[in-house]
Amino acid sequence: MKSFIEVSADSHFPIQNLPFGVFSIAEDEISSARVGVAIGDQILDLIVISKLFEKHVPELGNPALVFSQSSLNMFMSLGKPVWQATRKFLQVILSEDNPELRDNKELRNQAFIPQKLAKMHLPANIGHYTDFYASKEHATNCGIMLRGSSALFPNWIHLPVGYHGRASSVVVSGTDLLRPRGQRSPGKDQPPVFGPSIKLDFELEMAFFVGTGNNLGEPIPIQKAEDHIFGMDPTPFPYLQEEGKTAYDIHLEAKMKPSNNDTHKTLTRSNLKYMYWSIKQQLAHHTISGCNMRTGDLCGTGTISGPSEDARGSLLEITWNGKNEIDFGNGVKRLFVEDGDEVVLTGYCQGEGYKVGFGECSGKILPAISS
Amino acid sequence: MKSFIEVSADSHFPIQNLPFGVFSIAEDEISSARVGVAIGDQILDLIVISKLFEKHVPELGNPALVFSQSSLNMFMSLGKPVWQATRKFLQVILSEDNPELRDNKELRNQAFIPQKLAKMHLPANIGHYTDFYASKEHATNCGIMLRGSSALFPNWIHLPVGYHGRASSVVVSGTDLLRPRGQRSPGKDQPPVFGPSIKLDFELEMAFFVGTGNNLGEPIPIQKAEDHIFGMDPTPFPYLQEEGKTAYDIHLEAKMKPSNNDTHKTLTRSNLKYMYWSIKQQLAHHTISGCNMRTGDLCGTGTISGPSEDARGSLLEITWNGKNEIDFGNGVKRLFVEDGDEVVLTGYCQGEGYKVGFGECSGKILPAISS
Repeated sequence: MKSFIEVSADSHFPIQNLPFGVFSIAEDEISSARVGVAIGDQILDLIVISKLFEKHVPELGNPALVFSQSSLNMFMSLGKPVWQATRKFLQVILSEDNPELRDNKELRNQAFIPQKLAKMHLPANIGHYTDFYASKEHATNCGIMLRGSSALFPNWIHLPVGYHGRASSVVVSGTDLLRPRGQRSPGKDQPPVFGPSIKLDFELEMAFFVGTGNNLGEPIPIQKAEDHIFGMDPTPFPYLQEEGKTAYDIHLEAKMKPSNNDTHKTLTRSNLKYMYWSIKQQLAHHTISGCNMRTGDLCGTGTISGPSEDARGSLLEITWNGKNEIDFGNGVKRLFVEDGDEVVLTGYCQGEGYKVGFGECSGKILPAISS
Repeated sequence: MKSFIEVSADSHFPIQNLPFGVFSIAEDEISSARVGVAIGDQILDLIVISKLFEKHVPELGNPALVFSQSSLNMFMSLGKPVWQATRKFLQVILSEDNPELRDNKELRNQAFIPQKLAKMHLPANIGHYTDFYASKEHATNCGIMLRGSSALFPNWIHLPVGYHGRASSVVVSGTDLLRPRGQRSPGKDQPPVFGPSIKLDFELEMAFFVGTGNNLGEPIPIQKAEDHIFGMDPTPFPYLQEEGKTAYDIHLEAKMKPSNNDTHKTLTRSNLKYMYWSIKQQLAHHTISGCNMRTGDLCGTGTISGPSEDARGSLLEITWNGKNEIDFGNGVKRLFVEDGDEVVLTGYCQGEGYKVGFGECSGKILPAISS
């Protein structure tokens, strides 16, 4: 499979991938956020080709409406058969031997926007964000460091533990973040102190969006979980599946660029396949009580650590709770994230001669506010 | 202050109250949900009087748009000066000595809908729901029963503990609820068992909506907290304030009607004033880390238990974790909520000759699904 759009071998976005996103034109104040698909270093603007969708993917109903939204929620709410038909059509219309878009010079000029000119937005209106704790290696490491025991809590092997995060605080890649402040305990039997976080960390995770939800009181059975997970689409993604049903072989990597440094250093390499609890198990467990999930809900895997020391997914584990410094050269060392440091997370699957990737997600830490 | 609309002395909705809500006409399939205000046993339909708002409350901008929404979010997002101006105008236009609406027979006929013909909806599009744990008596009771210690956790007196609930599972009064299912531990060192909840409870709480939010990284100082809390409006609500700045004297009550019984029995009477952590403290603490709140976010107080045994706010406390049965007469006894039972929560402030109340909130439990 090959597109008439040139895609370099190391790109995360060949025709085999085609991830959906929401973008606007960075320098154009009146350009509104809308739905596009990444291919190579370009974005295909789906509004511009809405007439083609009307002709080839009637299931979309009103494609100009669906793709002019500033989130993927309307598209996601249409359900898996529509996601599949849309993706399949995009692969057809972008393939090198299909003349319909390739040879329509005017349409083609309008339809592709260089990624470097685009501003990316959060792809979904996220209602809820749940973060699981699905890596056994990570849970074990935390137990040893924080509770002095390598034994997991008894319930850990019976259910995917999750906690409920703030969807409002999820930001798009490239957003600077202020160091948070709060109360912490300086030691047992001592009163708490107030101030900026002193052990600021990152966690190398993946996440999925709920595409279609369920009604309150009606759990999603694990056999149907993948129909509800947006983007988990075995037909066009056979390359993603490695061993067993849900162990995706996705290489994950975290890099850090300390304040005033010029280059990033890779801190860890992990893999989604190390997860103990699969994303289908996470969704089935999340809803078993009757909890209703909604389009746009986000579920994180929790930190994914692998079996070896160089596959640990957080600074807590990498520095073993501040015991082992990371050396960035030129005297720059780190135990946790300091002000001005930038963290970059990335992930991809390796196909034969191409990558199916997730791009990069970066964030820089600014000092805590002082007032 | 008196309205030309007749209001009985025991009504929760005199002219001193005027709570905002979202309603539609129950029997009218095409009636869309919109904003109204309760007065006596009527609802004032705010769309119908939008011309009056245009004339008297220009700050509302486009009142027909604001009040034709199916949630209060747009109205809440306009901010406290607009809430105040709107409420003040409603009290003026509804007062017995103001002829503008009173004597406009045609407008008046359209503007008021009997509450018994209306279907109520959730008043807000709730983004996030945080539930605090702000009653010291409740936390102490739980500690004694569940941990065998009357000592609070050390952090309890330093910050209002809260947990993050699922906004998606918040339902409007009168909605039946299925008994949830899940895993539970039958005892130490025993494997978990799966099944319906066996100690289903209610919690007598209050909650507030965030009217206007804050940006990520910019905490809401406690001095400004009340500007962000929707409906917390000292000017028209002087009757609500009792002792100190934030201890509202709101009588709270929980009743239960067991399955096959005809009448409700009052199980407990508590009061919002027993809270240790005020709602302003809750909001200030919630945002101190930089967490961004958004219009429509809901914050619950947690169970409010008072100092006496008859002011305990949950069955866990009332039956002391299933030790003391509640006798409903005719051989009907309860330790926790059983299938078919209905719980009703209510609350009000007592003014001189009138009540400012919150109406009733009821829910009935249906059996767990079996599949």
